[in-house]
Amino acid sequence: MEIGSQFKTVALVGRSNTPAISEPLMALAACIAKRGLEVVFEAETASDIGVSGYPALTPAEIGARADVAVVLGGDGTMLGIGRQLAPYKTPLIGINHGRLGFITDIAAADMQEVVPQMLAGSFEREERSLLESRIMRNGEPIYHALAFNDVVVNRSGFSGMAELRVSVDGRFMYNQRSDGLIVATPTGSTAYALSSQGPILHPQLGGIVLVPIAPHALSNRPIVLPDDSTVSIQIIAGRDVNVNFDMQSFTALELNDTIDVRRSRHTVPFLHPVGYSYYATLRKKLHWNEHPSHDDDPLE
Amino acid sequence: MEIGSQFKTVALVGRSNTPAISEPLMALAACIAKRGLEVVFEAETASDIGVSGYPALTPAEIGARADVAVVLGGDGTMLGIGRQLAPYKTPLIGINHGRLGFITDIAAADMQEVVPQMLAGSFEREERSLLESRIMRNGEPIYHALAFNDVVVNRSGFSGMAELRVSVDGRFMYNQRSDGLIVATPTGSTAYALSSQGPILHPQLGGIVLVPIAPHALSNRPIVLPDDSTVSIQIIAGRDVNVNFDMQSFTALELNDTIDVRRSRHTVPFLHPVGYSYYATLRKKLHWNEHPSHDDDPLE
Amino acid sequence: MEIGSQFKTVALVGRSNTPAISEPLMALAACIAKRGLEVVFEAETASDIGVSGYPALTPAEIGARADVAVVLGGDGTMLGIGRQLAPYKTPLIGINHGRLGFITDIAAADMQEVVPQMLAGSFEREERSLLESRIMRNGEPIYHALAFNDVVVNRSGFSGMAELRVSVDGRFMYNQRSDGLIVATPTGSTAYALSSQGPILHPQLGGIVLVPIAPHALSNRPIVLPDDSTVSIQIIAGRDVNVNFDMQSFTALELNDTIDVRRSRHTVPFLHPVGYSYYATLRKKLHWNEHPSHDDDPLE
Amino acid sequence: MEIGSQFKTVALVGRSNTPAISEPLMALAACIAKRGLEVVFEAETASDIGVSGYPALTPAEIGARADVAVVLGGDGTMLGIGRQLAPYKTPLIGINHGRLGFITDIAAADMQEVVPQMLAGSFEREERSLLESRIMRNGEPIYHALAFNDVVVNRSGFSGMAELRVSVDGRFMYNQRSDGLIVATPTGSTAYALSSQGPILHPQLGGIVLVPIAPHALSNRPIVLPDDSTVSIQIIAGRDVNVNFDMQSFTALELNDTIDVRRSRHTVPFLHPVGYSYYATLRKKLHWNEHPSHDDDPLE
Repeated sequence: MEIGSQFKTVALVGRSNTPAISEPLMALAACIAKRGLEVVFEAETASDIGVSGYPALTPAEIGARADVAVVLGGDGTMLGIGRQLAPYKTPLIGINHGRLGFITDIAAADMQEVVPQMLAGSFEREERSLLESRIMRNGEPIYHALAFNDVVVNRSGFSGMAELRVSVDGRFMYNQRSDGLIVATPTGSTAYALSSQGPILHPQLGGIVLVPIAPHALSNRPIVLPDDSTVSIQIIAGRDVNVNFDMQSFTALELNDTIDVRRSRHTVPFLHPVGYSYYATLRKKLHWNEHPSHDDDPLE
Repeated sequence: MEIGSQFKTVALVGRSNTPAISEPLMALAACIAKRGLEVVFEAETASDIGVSGYPALTPAEIGARADVAVVLGGDGTMLGIGRQLAPYKTPLIGINHGRLGFITDIAAADMQEVVPQMLAGSFEREERSLLESRIMRNGEPIYHALAFNDVVVNRSGFSGMAELRVSVDGRFMYNQRSDGLIVATPTGSTAYALSSQGPILHPQLGGIVLVPIAPHALSNRPIVLPDDSTVSIQIIAGRDVNVNFDMQSFTALELNDTIDVRRSRHTVPFLHPVGYSYYATLRKKLHWNEHPSHDDDPLE
Repeated sequence: MEIGSQFKTVALVGRSNTPAISEPLMALAACIAKRGLEVVFEAETASDIGVSGYPALTPAEIGARADVAVVLGGDGTMLGIGRQLAPYKTPLIGINHGRLGFITDIAAADMQEVVPQMLAGSFEREERSLLESRIMRNGEPIYHALAFNDVVVNRSGFSGMAELRVSVDGRFMYNQRSDGLIVATPTGSTAYALSSQGPILHPQLGGIVLVPIAPHALSNRPIVLPDDSTVSIQIIAGRDVNVNFDMQSFTALELNDTIDVRRSRHTVPFLHPVGYSYYATLRKKLHWNEHPSHDDDPLE
Repeated sequence: MEIGSQFKTVALVGRSNTPAISEPLMALAACIAKRGLEVVFEAETASDIGVSGYPALTPAEIGARADVAVVLGGDGTMLGIGRQLAPYKTPLIGINHGRLGFITDIAAADMQEVVPQMLAGSFEREERSLLESRIMRNGEPIYHALAFNDVVVNRSGFSGMAELRVSVDGRFMYNQRSDGLIVATPTGSTAYALSSQGPILHPQLGGIVLVPIAPHALSNRPIVLPDDSTVSIQIIAGRDVNVNFDMQSFTALELNDTIDVRRSRHTVPFLHPVGYSYYATLRKKLHWNEHPSHDDDPLE
């Protein structure tokens, strides 16, 4: 928990194309402004909901000027702005407009109460890691991207199996025949990777997980690598193979292209309400048992 | 085991675009012809390897005229010709040109010895089930297909998650958010379905298995349905969703399209050498233990 | 749905050592008796809750005299009485005193309304299969048992890995090194077998599933066998290996003991309210999605 | 790779009760002694194979006096001596007498060539982490143990499900109903944890993995925690629950006992031949593909 009045300018970011967030976001803006803090809006959000009376800034301008960004939307909204603000180290507060997310862990109903407390300095801070990825073609880099959740190499549904040659730190790991391969951060371990039988990684673990998608060899299990690993994935076979970053940007690959993935030097600070528990989020999202059972019937 | 000289005309089918099968296939033809049986070639195979001296027939002509088809190639070759011959009930003998397959269970090195014995009547016969599938759009059927292994509904790698509404025999099962859904026969249970955490189904089991691909809900486990079930899969959400049949024919789907899948009234007879064991095939393909271990070290 | 007044004598069975079921069970008895049907109690239940005014019968007497048994408890209560009544083909109605079970699918709150309708003939009938098992030692049978859910061969937690030699219908399958092996009916497929990565089997599937527990070889996947299979499991290595039947009776095994398991010739009729859906039970128990999601955020 | 002649005294350790190792071990001793290094034997090994002419020392004496220990046996032999030598930081060289293990990665056939090179200073050094565990009963510690692979809390096969209350660093995680819970190091991630669907952890990852065994809730997935976590497991329900350390020592637990597990401050140095690759070991042990496939049949 950190106490202190370190925030002077607060950026508000909302899920795009979601008129329903207009009213709660404007109310939040008023509530924050009333406390003497400067409120700015992310430009697309401002345009989407027709904001007037507050400055509308690009993500780069927010990074330069705001001390904290409050995001109202879903986990996807958080990922999108998080990647853009990563170079500026702007801390993020995530509020979920619908049911709670893994990283938008404050309920919209509570935000008028909780956000001002946090902006007054009552919060817990946590650094989340990012991946940076570079696509090499014929020895030349052709694309760079950051990912908050995962870098996913995937065959298209129209083609047969892909074959990927995977190396780590220049050491050959295997040739994998599969639908694809997920390289995920701890944050991404509860997203697509979890659906493909990956483990959950605690956000404070220094690690990166490789999760094969429908691998031909049943022993191609998920593997968790140290934080400083560089993973290289070369496309050996397969038509219509592509790579995506947090499922939000996509690039088509050619045979022999190589995707290098490693941990970014940037991290993204998340702010949580005091008393935040990662395990409480997991219990809620994954329907884990809260209470001992008082049931002596062995099969219920 | 059935003994008898029931085969007069033998069709030979080879993997397409595989020059290396030319010599062994011609040798096999000579060996069979020498025994007084009529040999015919599947037309594409004949063209591929430049056969002369034997009739070249279409699959439909083979179905009408041949008593048995001997297939030299891989499991995929077997699936392709099997679907085409299904209406004619032509029995198949599968020889694998490379390493043994799940359904091409005779080694090429053994074929000169084994195939004549089988054609003389010494074999075990097994019926394998097929699926038939119909795609409905706006209430009209737009596509029909047979599948030997599986009917797979799949999002493209470029899109987000698909959402499928699944019903069985007109009863709602669930809305599934996933990369897709595999509907597999017992034969298909050791192919793509196995890579997606599906169970193995014994070929003589009367059943169909649904295997979700990377499902969002971790409790969307594979489910095995009775033989007479009709599965209906409606596309509720997702871009670029398609359906394929044994990964060999593909069709793009639109929102609200429904794919109905049920067991075909056709079955495909497979002939195996006497002493054939399905479990021996599984042991070989899946590296199962053959022998008791004599090792008292608990971790080796 | 079957309509008719075929039930004259109704047996009531409750979970043992559960005082809380006394009142609802007596109320149900009165409600049934008022309709002119004869009510009898299972003897242990009668003794547990101090029943007077109704006959108290052993399971064998219930089998001989009652036309239907209504069970109030959990899935375990249902399994216990189901095994005992199996030879008599007595149909069962399952009411869950706590949260709904997989096979006790009527809520206690609804029983006063639903049970009389069912006893009046408005129900859907379903046959559930059982397993019968025989333990052989030195060529002699030493134990027989029925199982509704599963026959489980299990090492004790105090010993190392077990090694089991598994054959089906006299054909060798594999030597399996693991914590044990589950042989489950469709009914048992949603119990312990599901926790060990087994598939769900529809109750009307004719099949038996083998699910290895923590197998050393990652390719020892669950396998579903035809209904008429006989599975033989021989203890090759391992200390303190035992076998249990529905987790309710246990026997210690010795090296070289063999457990034979096959489908029993008995089945147990379950009666469900009209409109019963197995899929609805799965959706509720497994938290499957009921509704299409209206959420365009790809990661929520 | 480190070059230098830092080893003066070499301890030899063999698998217990294994007469077949006598000859190769004595040959290795002679080969090392000939190079001017002092050879000592672990006392039990010396007694087992009737060593004369070399000192026989307890593990503690080896820790105090030897510069390196060469282990001939299996992974279990390595774990046993590794735990005992951990406080002394004695480096280990592992030679497998049978097929290669995950941590005994030198073949017996190669040892006469490889071990002298390593003792001359040509090796790669790697630190492996250990777990330390404490059992608390009624507020008092009743047992301490180290584990190299894993600490496993397990119900006995004779009892029903266990219920475990799990906390990490004093924060409640969940109540888990299961057969038990594995807490594993990276070294242990390829042992029992892998059989229970756990991920592989790279040895250089700073992390501990929790792998539930047959959990009742399908969403109780493996979770990887940071290196400095303390895991507390309290026995809430279940008969005959016990805990073991590397499957080599066992203790019976009572209700409400708590097992605390955290990373030991000790690490165990492993020495590998120059060019050692952890991924090569995984490929060999898990049958991962070495080579690109040249096979255009999609299903083979």
